[in-house]
Amino acid sequence: MHRLGIDLGERSYPILIGPGLIDDPAVVAEAVRAPDVLVVTNEVVGPLYLDRLLASLRGKRVASVVLPDGEQHKTLEVMGRVLDALVLGRMNRDACVAALGGGVVGDIAGFAAACYQRGIDFVQVPTSLLAQVDSSVGGKTGVNHPGGKNLIGAFHQPRAVVSDTATLATLPPRELRAGLAEVIKYGLIADLEFLTWLEDELPALLALEPAALAHAIRRSCEIKAEIVAEDEREHGRRALLNLGHTFGHAIEAAAGYGEWLHGEAVGVGMLLAADLSRRLGWLGEADLARVRELLARAGLPVTAPPIGERRALDLMGMDKKVLAGRIRLVLLAPLGAGVVSGDYPADALRATLAAHFGEAA
Amino acid sequence: MHRLGIDLGERSYPILIGPGLIDDPAVVAEAVRAPDVLVVTNEVVGPLYLDRLLASLRGKRVASVVLPDGEQHKTLEVMGRVLDALVLGRMNRDACVAALGGGVVGDIAGFAAACYQRGIDFVQVPTSLLAQVDSSVGGKTGVNHPGGKNLIGAFHQPRAVVSDTATLATLPPRELRAGLAEVIKYGLIADLEFLTWLEDELPALLALEPAALAHAIRRSCEIKAEIVAEDEREHGRRALLNLGHTFGHAIEAAAGYGEWLHGEAVGVGMLLAADLSRRLGWLGEADLARVRELLARAGLPVTAPPIGERRALDLMGMDKKVLAGRIRLVLLAPLGAGVVSGDYPADALRATLAAHFGEAA
Repeated sequence: MHRLGIDLGERSYPILIGPGLIDDPAVVAEAVRAPDVLVVTNEVVGPLYLDRLLASLRGKRVASVVLPDGEQHKTLEVMGRVLDALVLGRMNRDACVAALGGGVVGDIAGFAAACYQRGIDFVQVPTSLLAQVDSSVGGKTGVNHPGGKNLIGAFHQPRAVVSDTATLATLPPRELRAGLAEVIKYGLIADLEFLTWLEDELPALLALEPAALAHAIRRSCEIKAEIVAEDEREHGRRALLNLGHTFGHAIEAAAGYGEWLHGEAVGVGMLLAADLSRRLGWLGEADLARVRELLARAGLPVTAPPIGERRALDLMGMDKKVLAGRIRLVLLAPLGAGVVSGDYPADALRATLAAHFGEAA
Repeated sequence: MHRLGIDLGERSYPILIGPGLIDDPAVVAEAVRAPDVLVVTNEVVGPLYLDRLLASLRGKRVASVVLPDGEQHKTLEVMGRVLDALVLGRMNRDACVAALGGGVVGDIAGFAAACYQRGIDFVQVPTSLLAQVDSSVGGKTGVNHPGGKNLIGAFHQPRAVVSDTATLATLPPRELRAGLAEVIKYGLIADLEFLTWLEDELPALLALEPAALAHAIRRSCEIKAEIVAEDEREHGRRALLNLGHTFGHAIEAAAGYGEWLHGEAVGVGMLLAADLSRRLGWLGEADLARVRELLARAGLPVTAPPIGERRALDLMGMDKKVLAGRIRLVLLAPLGAGVVSGDYPADALRATLAAHFGEAA
């Protein structure tokens, strides 16, 4: 088992990574110290893992709530159901919310834990690769509003994260690949050596080999933690984590949310960021080819939908990460080093968009 | 105008106190620095003061939302309406929520500000005495759940508080008196000199004389701030602020919430706390008489409903401030110095309850 400490002063917490962890009562007891626990899961993950987690929680006073599956249920109303379950279970301030599932479950459950009695303990048991490498670090919780994604939420750090790599066996392969896009992102923005390791170990990751998965998850969390530690409230360096996201938003929005998985759109978005970086002379042709090849080998799409340059630009302009009318983008200079920049010729951006989205719709 | 600084490091903020402040654009501009503002008010306070506050906000991009009046509307659903208004108004992270009204409006609006985009600025413009002396300090925001009061919420400090004492002219006299109960509380738990001042200046306060009101509000906020600063997350000394609350909860719960105003129930509760303190030899007979007389002169009830000792004890046991089965109470030792204690003979508590609630129902 890997053990990674996230250093946040008195809010520090461990991320425990390895196969079979949810079946190990000692590991679960280390993570969940509260005597009373509400397990929050959904209708897909619950039937697979809820009983097993409950078995490892034996001896505690435990209640559970099963939410509907899917991003469309990440709402204030569904968060209210978790609060109802906390009240119904007579959970007090010493209780803990444990999120068993992917990012949606974690976001809702964490937000409920942040709000219940103005904040109770929260433990993540992520069962998707995306949640294991992304939601485990950063303390973001929340729900969507019809007017925008993640508009409602709180910063609330978990007490512990238990990433059981064996749960990835039941993850749909497409979601595994989308999670790999985020893993690749960490290599691209912060660690060329890790990127090279990913190129070598990609077959092992796709085959769900425990040692490879554990290293990939651990290193991704480490990188995210380093970046977040420097910038807890997201004004500077934390923006690096959005590599590929502004382009990706355009893809997701054009296709209708849900058509593309977030990680898939981000994957193509990273390719565009690399291409724009190349046009600026910050990356070489070979670097761009490496990015494209790694994404393709991971089974991720490398072609943007043909919506045309103008519409792509419009959709990017709606992004909340626009600062004062200027589109700041995460670019690469060089490979393995992300930079946040609004300092590029508009023509280079348009040429990049035209090359990938097409000249016109 | 009084100006009281609440020292919270980088979250420090001013409380501005005086008559006519909401009509003074310079004061309002000092408090509300954001370019975009959502004013949250209710259907009682809005018709009286919304236009005047909006006039002082001229030049900014302002939207407003008017909530229904009353504690029964302090719900997650109504909080969602404030979030809807923020989204509809296209408020970004630099926007500010301004709460114009009493404690309910402040609690809902502050919680919405805490959740919107994971936290935006919040300014309080309290128009009730209770809100001016209580909600202005401590950072508590939140809503009720059918299962309990204030079960859902967040700690979110305001950027500024504007306490316009002239708005108290439209406060129902019964609510003014209930607010005075909280003011008296601060004297009892922390400042004998202030208690003496209150005894002298009570007629001026009841006549809404601006200088007397400003001093009472300022000193109350100062005392609360000193106590909260020592204990931001409510485990130790902050419990002093609950003087009279455990007894008061029994009164409110027995009568049905809403029959007694919170401050009225707390007033009688403080009398019981003083009586128990006397039985323990911590206060003298004369001290108890002073407490009773001051409450009576403030127009507050000094007689508990005749629900009987046993039922009162039951209702106190349901209180969330019970620690491990033991009822910890805020007592006085001596007058002007609150202590949190579970260290009293059960007989003394029962005798106190019997003396005020009656032997049996």
